[in-house]
Amino acid sequence: MSKTAIVLLSGGLDSATCLAIARSMGFTTYALSVHYGQRHAAELDAARRVAAALGAHDHRVMGVDLAGIGGSALTDPSVAVPETTGAGGAPGAAAAPGIPVTYVPARNTLLLSLALGWAEVAGAADIFVGVNAVDYSGYPDCRPAFIDAFGRLAQLATKAGVEGTHYTIQAPLIALSKAEIIRTGVNLGVDYGMTVSCYQADAEGRACGKCDSCRLRAQGFADAGVADPTAYA
Amino acid sequence: MSKTAIVLLSGGLDSATCLAIARSMGFTTYALSVHYGQRHAAELDAARRVAAALGAHDHRVMGVDLAGIGGSALTDPSVAVPETTGAGGAPGAAAAPGIPVTYVPARNTLLLSLALGWAEVAGAADIFVGVNAVDYSGYPDCRPAFIDAFGRLAQLATKAGVEGTHYTIQAPLIALSKAEIIRTGVNLGVDYGMTVSCYQADAEGRACGKCDSCRLRAQGFADAGVADPTAYA
Repeated sequence: MSKTAIVLLSGGLDSATCLAIARSMGFTTYALSVHYGQRHAAELDAARRVAAALGAHDHRVMGVDLAGIGGSALTDPSVAVPETTGAGGAPGAAAAPGIPVTYVPARNTLLLSLALGWAEVAGAADIFVGVNAVDYSGYPDCRPAFIDAFGRLAQLATKAGVEGTHYTIQAPLIALSKAEIIRTGVNLGVDYGMTVSCYQADAEGRACGKCDSCRLRAQGFADAGVADPTAYA
Repeated sequence: MSKTAIVLLSGGLDSATCLAIARSMGFTTYALSVHYGQRHAAELDAARRVAAALGAHDHRVMGVDLAGIGGSALTDPSVAVPETTGAGGAPGAAAAPGIPVTYVPARNTLLLSLALGWAEVAGAADIFVGVNAVDYSGYPDCRPAFIDAFGRLAQLATKAGVEGTHYTIQAPLIALSKAEIIRTGVNLGVDYGMTVSCYQADAEGRACGKCDSCRLRAQGFADAGVADPTAYA
């Protein structure tokens, strides 16, 4: 019997690659998408397509109301998504230094908590999350130390952990550049045209081409020498 | 200026006491109730009354869809809430050994994650949670080791933590018996008649008197020598 893993699947480039990696490692995959009040709901449609295309055994969408606490351009409509100030707003312009306003407070802690709950119920000991500490936009909860700390917490937090299940938080992208992630996914057959990374994609999932996420993604395709399949608005 | 704290407030006896303790320590309190698909929604009405009565500065209710993953008598309608098998189902009968089906997978991890997100936005460094390792029904995420691990995670998970905020997970009830909790709350003016602890309270918040939670609560009032103000169905 194959092992089971929970895969956090946003519908973006990184998490799609993560799902493909989990499948290539032989895991039966349960994909989990979380609708946390973010603007870019088009990602959820992308997540459904990606889960089906990459053979996820199950895919569930959970809703969490983070909009109530505000504090992020991704969940609070009163905060503007920053666009790059390079010539013409072209991808490749430098992002502002420091942790950006697109940071969602405690997001990965929350996402991993939900994944852990499902892992325990489903009998999965592995949780895949597509965090990346290279092109990571400065989010603190994308660093290896955070992933390690969550793994220790998972062991203590659960009935299964107390009874002997050894939880592993799998972050296979954490040390890869965006170009390396893209090359990995292409080798595993990921169709990145299905994925949506843009922080302010339109209802059809078309990208703005101007936000940090678009910029990093476009640069990644350029660096990987792979044609960019992204649909821009 | 007084310090600010997030207080997880379920509407039950323990979290009401926790809020009173936070207030007595001089904190400006932001009370957070989470509706996670549990059956006992009457607790939320209780939480609103308790937050107002104990002077919480703000009170918010967040919704999280845990029912989708099942696995607990508290979130999955297909799992029955166990009742004690003592004579007449009277409070005081022994609960079954081990971790009960009323355990919600990764619940406290999830609740603390939501509290951490709000703490970061609100500029709070303290999070109060009414976990208790004495009369704790065997939940793994009520133990001191879990609380310590979450504190370490909070430090690594957040922009504020990275920038120097020292997070403290306050679990003032963790080593108290139910009777000690009740005596503490009575001294701080908590009206326990407002609180609902029952796992299967009716729409008016009246307790069943038969579940583990009712049993522990009734025994606590008896042990404390305090008249039980609980409304039973």
